[in-house]
Order: sequence, then C-alpha cells, then structure tokens
Amino acid sequence: MVTPLADSGRLDAAGTARLVEHVLAGGVHGLFLLGTTGEAPDLPYAVRHELVRRVCAQVAGRVPVLVGVTDTMYDESLRLAETAAASGAAAVVAAPPYYFAPGQPELVEYYARLADNLPLPLFLYNMPSQVKVSIAVPTVVELARHANIAGLKDSSGNIGYFNACRYALRDRPDFAILMGPEEAMGEVVLMGASGGVPGGANIFPRLFVDLYEAAVAKDVDRVRALQERVMHVASLLYGVGHHNSSFVKGVKCALSLMGICGDALAGPREPFNAADRALIRARLVELGALSNEKGGAPPRYGA
Amino acid sequence: MVTPLADSGRLDAAGTARLVEHVLAGGVHGLFLLGTTGEAPDLPYAVRHELVRRVCAQVAGRVPVLVGVTDTMYDESLRLAETAAASGAAAVVAAPPYYFAPGQPELVEYYARLADNLPLPLFLYNMPSQVKVSIAVPTVVELARHANIAGLKDSSGNIGYFNACRYALRDRPDFAILMGPEEAMGEVVLMGASGGVPGGANIFPRLFVDLYEAAVAKDVDRVRALQERVMHVASLLYGVGHHNSSFVKGVKCALSLMGICGDALAGPREPFNAADRALIRARLVELGALSNEKGGAPPRYGA
Amino acid sequence: MVTPLADSGRLDAAGTARLVEHVLAGGVHGLFLLGTTGEAPDLPYAVRHELVRRVCAQVAGRVPVLVGVTDTMYDESLRLAETAAASGAAAVVAAPPYYFAPGQPELVEYYARLADNLPLPLFLYNMPSQVKVSIAVPTVVELARHANIAGLKDSSGNIGYFNACRYALRDRPDFAILMGPEEAMGEVVLMGASGGVPGGANIFPRLFVDLYEAAVAKDVDRVRALQERVMHVASLLYGVGHHNSSFVKGVKCALSLMGICGDALAGPREPFNAADRALIRARLVELGALSNEKGGAPPRYGA
Amino acid sequence: MVTPLADSGRLDAAGTARLVEHVLAGGVHGLFLLGTTGEAPDLPYAVRHELVRRVCAQVAGRVPVLVGVTDTMYDESLRLAETAAASGAAAVVAAPPYYFAPGQPELVEYYARLADNLPLPLFLYNMPSQVKVSIAVPTVVELARHANIAGLKDSSGNIGYFNACRYALRDRPDFAILMGPEEAMGEVVLMGASGGVPGGANIFPRLFVDLYEAAVAKDVDRVRALQERVMHVASLLYGVGHHNSSFVKGVKCALSLMGICGDALAGPREPFNAADRALIRARLVELGALSNEKGGAPPRYGA
Repeated sequence: MVTPLADSGRLDAAGTARLVEHVLAGGVHGLFLLGTTGEAPDLPYAVRHELVRRVCAQVAGRVPVLVGVTDTMYDESLRLAETAAASGAAAVVAAPPYYFAPGQPELVEYYARLADNLPLPLFLYNMPSQVKVSIAVPTVVELARHANIAGLKDSSGNIGYFNACRYALRDRPDFAILMGPEEAMGEVVLMGASGGVPGGANIFPRLFVDLYEAAVAKDVDRVRALQERVMHVASLLYGVGHHNSSFVKGVKCALSLMGICGDALAGPREPFNAADRALIRARLVELGALSNEKGGAPPRYGA
Repeated sequence: MVTPLADSGRLDAAGTARLVEHVLAGGVHGLFLLGTTGEAPDLPYAVRHELVRRVCAQVAGRVPVLVGVTDTMYDESLRLAETAAASGAAAVVAAPPYYFAPGQPELVEYYARLADNLPLPLFLYNMPSQVKVSIAVPTVVELARHANIAGLKDSSGNIGYFNACRYALRDRPDFAILMGPEEAMGEVVLMGASGGVPGGANIFPRLFVDLYEAAVAKDVDRVRALQERVMHVASLLYGVGHHNSSFVKGVKCALSLMGICGDALAGPREPFNAADRALIRARLVELGALSNEKGGAPPRYGA
Repeated sequence: MVTPLADSGRLDAAGTARLVEHVLAGGVHGLFLLGTTGEAPDLPYAVRHELVRRVCAQVAGRVPVLVGVTDTMYDESLRLAETAAASGAAAVVAAPPYYFAPGQPELVEYYARLADNLPLPLFLYNMPSQVKVSIAVPTVVELARHANIAGLKDSSGNIGYFNACRYALRDRPDFAILMGPEEAMGEVVLMGASGGVPGGANIFPRLFVDLYEAAVAKDVDRVRALQERVMHVASLLYGVGHHNSSFVKGVKCALSLMGICGDALAGPREPFNAADRALIRARLVELGALSNEKGGAPPRYGA
Repeated sequence: MVTPLADSGRLDAAGTARLVEHVLAGGVHGLFLLGTTGEAPDLPYAVRHELVRRVCAQVAGRVPVLVGVTDTMYDESLRLAETAAASGAAAVVAAPPYYFAPGQPELVEYYARLADNLPLPLFLYNMPSQVKVSIAVPTVVELARHANIAGLKDSSGNIGYFNACRYALRDRPDFAILMGPEEAMGEVVLMGASGGVPGGANIFPRLFVDLYEAAVAKDVDRVRALQERVMHVASLLYGVGHHNSSFVKGVKCALSLMGICGDALAGPREPFNAADRALIRARLVELGALSNEKGGAPPRYGA
C-alpha cells in the first residue's frame, strides 16, 4: 500500500480510509504497509505510527495487516512493531538496515535479535537494489528455523534466488515466500509460491486477486491472460517520468486521478507535473479506469 | 553444451561425439554451442571452429544447431559465423562485446551491423553478469525489427526483464525468447515463453525435455515436480568448489564420471581435485545417474 | 569523530568529553560529528541531538564543529540542523538520502531545497558506497553556486572524481573540498585541497595535524613519512574482524583500550570479542600508543 | 599508446611511425602498447602482432616498450608475448581474463602460471571497471614475490587501493607501481610512486614528462600547475560524445586533426561525426595544439 499524504509530512487520513476500502473491495488477502512503495524510509515516524493505527482500525480484522519496520535504528523498528502489535497487525516485515551493509553473519545476528524482541512474527524482506545486500539463501534457511520468523518477501526480481529459496524450504509449507515484483506474480504462484505483494494492487486490486486465484486454481490460460493485463498496466503507468521514483509517482498520480487520495510524496520530492499527469490520465482512460469525462466510476479493470 | 576438451587447448573429438549423442538421445530440440557454459571466450579459435564443424556433422540435421559467436573482435564473430553457416548451423548467438561496455545506442548499431553481415539469423544474448551491460527492453524491441534478428536468449535471471521483453514482443510469436537459468525454465514456458537453454541438459537432457513438454502441455503438477527435480540436481552438483567456475566444473566433472567426456577446462583453469570429484561422484549416485559400483548405465534421471 | 556510547542506545557523556579533549589536544582544526564513522544513521535521534549539544558546549568555540544531518527523512535533517545552529555549530553536512537513490536532477532539487531551509551552511557529502549514488561533478558545480552550500566532503576514494571536482571549482577557493579516506589526505593537501576528514584522528589526532601542516608547508619528504605512518596505523588497526564494520569497531576498540571511551556500538552490533580486542591491544603497543603494562600515557604517536 | 588504424581491421603503419616519433619527441620514458586506450581486446590478432613488431622496430631500443597481452585465451597471451620478446619489448602487461571473473585464488594461479611461462617480465594490470574484478592487495603482495612479476599498473582510480599497494610493497623499490588515470599522476609520483601511464600523452607527451619530472624533483608548485593543465586538457577533450568510448574517440580525433594518424576505431565503432570533430578542433585551437588556420606546427602544449 502506498502512504496517502496530505503534504510531504502529514498523513491524508480520509484518503487512507478510501484507499483501504478500495483495496479491500478488490478482495485482497492482506495489506502490507510501509514497504518501499509505502515510501517508509522517507516518512516521519509520527506518520508511520499514525498510518499503522488508522489502517488497522479501518481494516478491523477483515484481513491480516503486515507492517514494514525496516530501519537503520534498531529501537525504532521495535517501537513501530509495538504500535503494530497494539493496533492488531498480524506481522512485521524488515529489510536489512540500509546504510551500513551487513555481512551475512551480521544479518543472521541482526534478524535473530530482532525476532527475539519483536511482539509479532517477522517476515524477512529481500531488497538488494535499495539496501545493497541480498539475504543469501543459506541465511534465509538458517533464519527460517527461528520460531518468530514467518516468511520472506523477495523483491530482488532474481528468479534463480527466489526459486532456490523455495526449493531450500520445500519442507516448510508454513514459511511463506512472497514475490515482490508484480511482473512475476502469476507464474510463481502457479508453481506453488505463497503469493505476491504487488504495488499495482493499490490501483487494480481485483486484477491481482483474480490472478492469484487463477494461479492457485492452476488455470494456466487465465493466468497468462491476467498476467499480460498486469504487464499492460505496468507498461502504461510505471514508466512515466524518470528515475527510481517513477513507479511510486505513477501509482500515486493514478490514485489521485481516480479520486482516492492525493499525490503528495514524502520528503522533498514533487508529484508529477501537469504534462506527466495528463499522460497518466490518458492512460487510465485507455485502461478503462477513468471515463473520458472527469468523474464516473472506474469499471472493473477496463473490462 | 559444454565443450569437451582433451586438454586446455585441444578438442576431445570422441567425447564431443558421445556428448552430442547423449544429449540427442534425451530428445532435445536443439543444441547451443559456445555459450558461457561452453567456455567460448577462453577457447582457442581453432577449437571453436572445429567444435562447430564436428557437432554439425554429427548432428546431421537431426536438430537445429545454434552457435555462439560472442567476441570483442568483430571480424572473428563473422568468421565463426561463416564456419557455422558452411557447416549447416541454423543460427548464431551473440552477447554484447565484453571488454568495452557499449551504451544502448552503440548496442543497436553493433547488432544491426552484425546482423546485416551475418550469413545466418542472429539471436541476441543478454548476459549482464559477464558483459556488464544489459540489452535494454527498448533496444531488444528496436532490434527485433531487423529481418535477420530472430530471438533473444536472456541469462540475466531478472524475471521482470524477461517478462517485459515477452510483453513488449507479444505480437511477434516468430521472435523466440529463451530463458537461460534452468531454475526458471518450467514456469516461463508454462507462461508461453519459447523455451530454455539449460546447462544441466548436458547431464540430464531428458529431464529438461520432459519439463519443457509438461509446460507446453500446461500440466502444472508435472511442471512443479520436474522443476523441483531440476532444483535438486542444481543443489547437489553446481555448488561444489568455489567461484564463478563451480557450475562448469561441476557439469564437466559429472560428464567425466559418467564416461561421456573428460573434465579438462579451457585456459589455465584446473578441473576439480580428488575430494571435490568424490563429492560429485557421491551425488551422482544419489541422483541415480551413476551406480554405486563404477560403471553401469545411468537410469533415466534417477527414477 | 566516533560517537561514544554507554550502550547501544545511550551516549557516553564522560567519554564524549574525554574524546573531544583528546582530539583537540592533538591540534585538529575542526570536528565532524555524525558522519559514517559516527554511526549516525544507526543512532537514536535523542543521542544525535545530545551529542551535538554536548560536543558544542565542550568545544566552546575553540574549533568549528560540523554536524552530519544525513537522513532519509527530510524533516529530521532540518531538526538536527536546528539543534546544531542553536548549539553553536559552524556548518552541517549531508549525504544524499540513502534508501531511494535519487537521480542527478533530483539531487540538485534535494540539496537546493535543503540549503534554502537550513540555518547553517551546508557541505555536500559524497559517499557512493553507502548511498548508492555519486554526486556527479556537474551537480557539485551547479550546487556550489548556492549561497548556502559551502563545500564538499568526498569519501568516494575515487581520485579522478576528487580532482575533477577540484579542477571544476578552481576559481572558488572559498568552496572547501575535503578528502574522506585518510590514505590519501597528505597528497591531496599537498596538491592544494582544503583538507581531510580522517577517522584515524580519533586515535592519533596529532599525526593527522602534522600531516596536514607538512602538506600545507609543501614539505614533501615529511608528508611522505607521515603518510606512511598513517598507512601503518591503518594496516594494523582497521583490518581486524570482518565486514564493513571493521573500521569503526577497530577505532572504538582502540579508544576503549586507551581509556578514552567505551566500545559499545550503535544498533544491535557487538564490539570486538576478546581475541580481536587482544589483537588491537598488541598493535597499539606496537604503535607506541599503549605501554606494555596497562596504564601509562600514550607517547606522541609512537615516536 | 592508441593503436593507429587505417580502417577498423588494418594498422595505419605510417601513422604508427609518426605517433611513435611524436611521443618519443616528447621525452617519454617508455611506451605501453595494447592497453585499454590501445583498444586491444577489439583488435584482430594480426594487427596486435604487427603493431608490436613495427613499434619495437621504430623505437629501436630508445625507450622500453611494454606490451599488453590481456586476453581471455591463455595461449594468445603467450603468443603475443613471444612476438613481444622477439621484437625486443621489455615487458608484458596483463589484466585478469575479462569474461569469467576469477576469484582471488584463481587470480593467483592464473598470474603465477602466466609468469612461469612468459618470455618477458610481467606487469599486473588492475582494471576493475572493465574486467569486473579487482586484484586484491594481498593478491598483489603474493604475486610480487614471483621472480618474473615486475610491477603493477593500477587503473582503478581508487586511491586507497593504490596507496595500500604502495604501502604493502614499501620494501620493494624494484616493484614498479604505476598510476593509470592521468588525473592523479602528479600527486602519486610526488609521493614516491614509480610513474604513470597517461593516455593523454598520445597528444601532449611533453606535458606528462614535465609533470613527472617536476614530481620527481619534488617541485610542488610546478606539479600543481602542470596537473591543472592536465585537468584542463581532460575537461576539453575527453568529454565530447557519449558512452565509455568518448575518451579513446577524443584522443584519436585529436591525433587525426593534428595530422599524426587517422581516427578509425577498432571493431564496428565509428569515429566522431563532423559536429563532434569540429568541437575537438576548436578545443585543440584553444589548447594551442592547432593553429586557427589548418596547418602550422603545434606549439609546446599551448604555451
């Protein structure tokens, strides 16, 4: 889930409520707050804690909520996890600390100590492009033995790594292995993976739920068709603008055009300018997510 | 296909013939010579040309033969392609030049000029871990318009890249997109990709043919089981030894133990020592590819 | 300056006072707090603010104090800069945000906005190994025009980059360009650079002051001898242990053995174990910084 | 030295002779053929061998000639070294094989075996940007013990690495350590390093000889002034065009405009177009290396 913001330093509470309902209406099986798409590392702590409390209250147990607690400051990870636990979240998720890149033995120590002290189960979050270090397969295997470590979200996009983790933990059906990039969600669930954490589900939640269900049902033709639809969305909405920020800017701009929440970004970053915004609007119309006249309910992913 | 060597600088002609028959007996749909697993950049040109001539003669049209012509020297790529054409090969394959990393416009120029002058259709070969540069999706799309560029072999392992290429060329069923890493072959063929180029097929060709056929038949359960078998083989045979070379050393050592060809490596590299060799032997026994007593025909991948 | 800690989450106030006096007694021309060696990104904010207040009070204007405000959270950078200004610091220093790697135009925007809003002059901090992005030379040149941007600390170790920045700003003697790695401090000051920010000055401040002064005096022989002494210290103290953390662990362990401050580290990291500590002790004796019997004042860098 | 080419696949023999005389007239202490600036990996072997023979004959013992034999094919390295020895070259230079990145123990084995079999002393060539692996300091130290390994050319630009090598081998004045990037030549020779291998010396050999001599004479002011001149040349000539190739294209274009040799490039690469060429011309005029009217002898680096 993206983090709806009123401005760069304040939560958009009403937008958050609308986004939660929009996504739950699409049938998702859980929510992941404060990941990379959630801009977590750039958000003030007050915003992070408020987001966790508001979303958990809004969800009210309808689906499990996972909360990203990735931080360079160990105590802040624990503090956010306390809020998550007190608010009724189901688990927390942590990428490695992202300034000093730890060695693999340091990663084992870090995660073991974190898991020892957390009030909720922990998911490992592999995100080498941002944190500079990959959680190596043997490290994942060793940490999977910890009673309070429940799974792995892999956002490396490295399919050999993902499948090696799945193979190494093939006797641990209780250990969830989730695919980050939505471009590969269908095929890995078809192969037996636990699920995915697609950022595009902020906009089109039903599309990804349908894809997941088709994959669980081993309906290959439907998986192919829906995954192609996912690629179509990605090709239209995520490549506007430049730099690493084009994905989150694209998603927030689309949600803003759909009337769900504003497009403010954390930190000093600016939302899309008028030209980029017009491009996203045109593409949402093409996707059937906006009618040509402003207003009008978005039909089910453009059917 | 690995390149069987008598010693670091001479082809093992008898071993080459045995390997070709072993792999064809497994039912493979084609052969790829002189790729990364074939140690091409470290092989003397005389060996490369002899390999192409011998394999094409041995295959005698039973399956198409693809020949890697990746080189830093443009003229040598053309010369090897001439030998490939004269020998009856079906196509050539080229990764970007691997000393000076070209920019994307330079890649377009390089491949277009190469394709203009080649006597055979060209496959692009994406191999960023070795050549430092990825053939960007728009570059692939632009080059796919060239009449003499027939497909892409992607060995990046980056599943977002692979699927983005497939999506971008979804209206070009004639443009083959092949998965390099065998760890991901099953799922991408299940999703409609053209096929794979699995190095492990040197040892267990039938396993990969069965996997391919199960994927084409959309038999999800069988794909899952066979892909798990592939991961099992990989976990036992490719991680012995150290460094980048453990994969090719493992494959050559296994083939040597199976009586197919020797384990000499190109350049100054040494094959596995006795301890590593004993480990590979034990694991081949575990895989059912060797009987416990030396000798005895390998059963069909350990059934 | 390292950050002396009582334990992973609390400042060692007495140790901080001793370290400040130790370093000032060595004659340094300024202090840099909360850089990479200061473990800033892993420190609780309360510790960062307390450190700034205590050090500025202790220094009491004897030398300028520079304060690292690098953060992923824009508002926290400003807040820490407010504390720095209120405490009498001379300037602040900021590396790029270190989770989402900005593009160069985004870096220009980020730094310009930060500099607009800071109560103190800003030094750019180039640290690509940790933050994944380098502040490109043209970006430095453009930002150097901002009235509130005063200099650059370059910790890339890339001498071509460092010298290109110096050349591009050769007409701006007011724009300070400081070398991070102590292994190169002597030579760049000899060539006219403004100075260095050597982490080893925590232990041997006089050594680096002497080196700086010899370089300013263009005393080539003395620069060579002192720089060799710096390399000798580095070879003995910074390579114990493993991983990226060996430098800061080595410095803190040495300071602890010298009776200056404890060796606790930020976050969940552990100080050196007994064996590594014994090794550092033996090497400090070899360097003349510890007498063989525990106790005894360290002689001037081992003369 | 660049490799003058008549076209992408043939040596420009007359241009080669002129370039040798131009560079020797500048007073250089040696020549390095077939390095990165020499485009070696992209050159046909016939051209490489011919270049070595012609240059050695032309030099006729006036200065030592070093010959790059970097290759992925071990036997070709030996063959080129034979030609070098037979032609009277003084030493050969080899970067690590550049397709399969070796581990450090593999590097030790590779270089030791190469040095055992070479007819000439060997210089190690550290060039991680092209070959993906750095020759680690302990590897250099170990290899420096080999009787036939005579030195190191470091083109990493990493000043901490360079100085760590120098420190580790401070008791081996016979082991030459040469700086690749010309942006740092002056300062390291001032500090006692053996010398540099500046690509810009193709155009302005005297400038670099003067810089070297000023550094050996410990004339700091003169080193500063000449190094600034080097940076000025670099800023004007090496940044035209795009991609990694802008350096070699700039140097060859300048030599062509100065009437020394043509600007053809190895492989399928194109020289600068008319616009880029005009820019280089204007800058050579600015540098005083060309008179405004075409023709006229270039004055001593623009004095």
